Amino acid sequence: MRALVFDSQTGGPPGLRLARKRATPEPPPGEARIRTTLSGICNTDLEVVRGYAEIQGVLGHEFVGIVDQAEDGSLVGRRVAGEINASCRVCPTCRAGRHTHCPTRTTLGIRNRDGVLADAFCLPVANLHPLPDDMPDEMAVFAEPLAAACQVLEQIQVKPTDRVIVLGDGKLGLLVAQVVALTGCDLVAIGRHQEKLSILDGRGITTKLDGDDVSGGADLVIECTGQAGGFYRARDLVRPRGTLVLKSTYHDDLVPTDLSRLVVDEIRVVGSRCGPFPPAIRLLSQGLVDVLPLIEAEYPLDEALTAFEHAGRRGALKVLVRP
Amino acid sequence: MRALVFDSQTGGPPGLRLARKRATPEPPPGEARIRTTLSGICNTDLEVVRGYAEIQGVLGHEFVGIVDQAEDGSLVGRRVAGEINASCRVCPTCRAGRHTHCPTRTTLGIRNRDGVLADAFCLPVANLHPLPDDMPDEMAVFAEPLAAACQVLEQIQVKPTDRVIVLGDGKLGLLVAQVVALTGCDLVAIGRHQEKLSILDGRGITTKLDGDDVSGGADLVIECTGQAGGFYRARDLVRPRGTLVLKSTYHDDLVPTDLSRLVVDEIRVVGSRCGPFPPAIRLLSQGLVDVLPLIEAEYPLDEALTAFEHAGRRGALKVLVRP
Repeated sequence: MRALVFDSQTGGPPGLRLARKRATPEPPPGEARIRTTLSGICNTDLEVVRGYAEIQGVLGHEFVGIVDQAEDGSLVGRRVAGEINASCRVCPTCRAGRHTHCPTRTTLGIRNRDGVLADAFCLPVANLHPLPDDMPDEMAVFAEPLAAACQVLEQIQVKPTDRVIVLGDGKLGLLVAQVVALTGCDLVAIGRHQEKLSILDGRGITTKLDGDDVSGGADLVIECTGQAGGFYRARDLVRPRGTLVLKSTYHDDLVPTDLSRLVVDEIRVVGSRCGPFPPAIRLLSQGLVDVLPLIEAEYPLDEALTAFEHAGRRGALKVLVRP
Repeated sequence: MRALVFDSQTGGPPGLRLARKRATPEPPPGEARIRTTLSGICNTDLEVVRGYAEIQGVLGHEFVGIVDQAEDGSLVGRRVAGEINASCRVCPTCRAGRHTHCPTRTTLGIRNRDGVLADAFCLPVANLHPLPDDMPDEMAVFAEPLAAACQVLEQIQVKPTDRVIVLGDGKLGLLVAQVVALTGCDLVAIGRHQEKLSILDGRGITTKLDGDDVSGGADLVIECTGQAGGFYRARDLVRPRGTLVLKSTYHDDLVPTDLSRLVVDEIRVVGSRCGPFPPAIRLLSQGLVDVLPLIEAEYPLDEALTAFEHAGRRGALKVLVRP
């Protein structure tokens, strides 16, 4: 089969290549093989190539696919999305309900598990979420990043009266802003690209360009810029005893942080990563979140390297890859 | 009157002097004048002298005193402890119940308000808490730091089944450990001084010396070391999706922080500062927290400079000053 593989020992773009004769994987017990129908390139994939993770294998973790091999025959032929962390489900962390933090987990296209930028890949059956028949692939491929946006509301109670700021108009920021706006909160989304913010404007969400006058003192600031500098901006915008949610992961130097100021202002900082798929799929089904305007381009798998280069351009939105 | 005054423009120990003829303050409307009967030196006072705050005035914020002038005559003669943040009580922050974060607040001995290391000082009547007659001054003087320890439980729900680690066996660490232990949680207090940890041992709290084998994965780690390095240690000991409470304020360089790791492990970091007095006074009254063993020395106000030097010695516990 074909697969976009990366070798972090080579590193950088030279470590990336399109393999054309990689062996099609055989699913181990408890897993299904999925034929990729559509996949998305995420900032994390770009960060992996910048050195964020050790990987020798297939990249990619956002997908829609059709199960083509599974112990439970009734699964074969189902169209699915899927959670990216494959956990042991028996350790104390898993039993406590925190399976996305299982210490022995593998992560699709990121840690010890081949990813989805390929003709096929394997994932535990427990990770799969069947998709409604009437949901187009182009929407369903957003289930994973939208789940990550929903995770903010799993961790933090956003009150309808809260003043909330979402920082960053990248793919994740645009999804987070839309999800958080559903609480009825007093939301401002801040970004650098008018054409991206207009996606939010179209849904009645207040937006500001970076540099516009924005009053601080927000109850909650959600940092989605993907850059270390976003932390400082977020810190300046949150009120004392407010909450600062960090959604960005990046390969970067350590960020010098004034911890005493966090203490004096009693700020709560919450790291937030992968989230729950069922609410993400429900929000897509209900049409409560607009994802199609986030699609910037689609490439065939044979042009995955070009797709990757495109996704890495400054300000690029979602680039899809179709086998 | 006599007062220990500090000038941060001179800075450091040379900026510190015992004034002998400072004018006794007259309470403005809404405030009382309190005659200090006993005061304590806190790490924050030491940090102020190291450059933590801009101050030209009297140091100190931990006190027991007798009201000797107030509009409400019934207050005169009452023995009181008092909250250190004097807030406007009318701004949005105060009206939202966050008066310790009032943007125009003054803070006793720290920000724009003369402190308690003097024969007398003023404080808003709203800040005063009458003390039970049978509580000795030596216990009551701990109301302020004990309130700061109670603040952890105002901000974080500690469950009886939680695994909790308190880092640091300084004055604040010993109080925080005792307060948190009252939840019935599985607590380990880690410090560097066996003689200090033995205060906790005596209350049946498990203690470990720094360097002893301590298993990580705690649900909650409370950082009370007063040093930047404590953050890294705390970070290593908390489990994914666990909580890290920061109690230390210090004058120090920025702390290089791996924010992506906070995101991947979905850690919650909570800054925690001043706390509520009534529960602190109740805990003291009920004998649920041992404070007398924390007293290391007592000096008369005339020897306040010596007291300050003593409090600054490595590993020193509470140094009291009596006018």
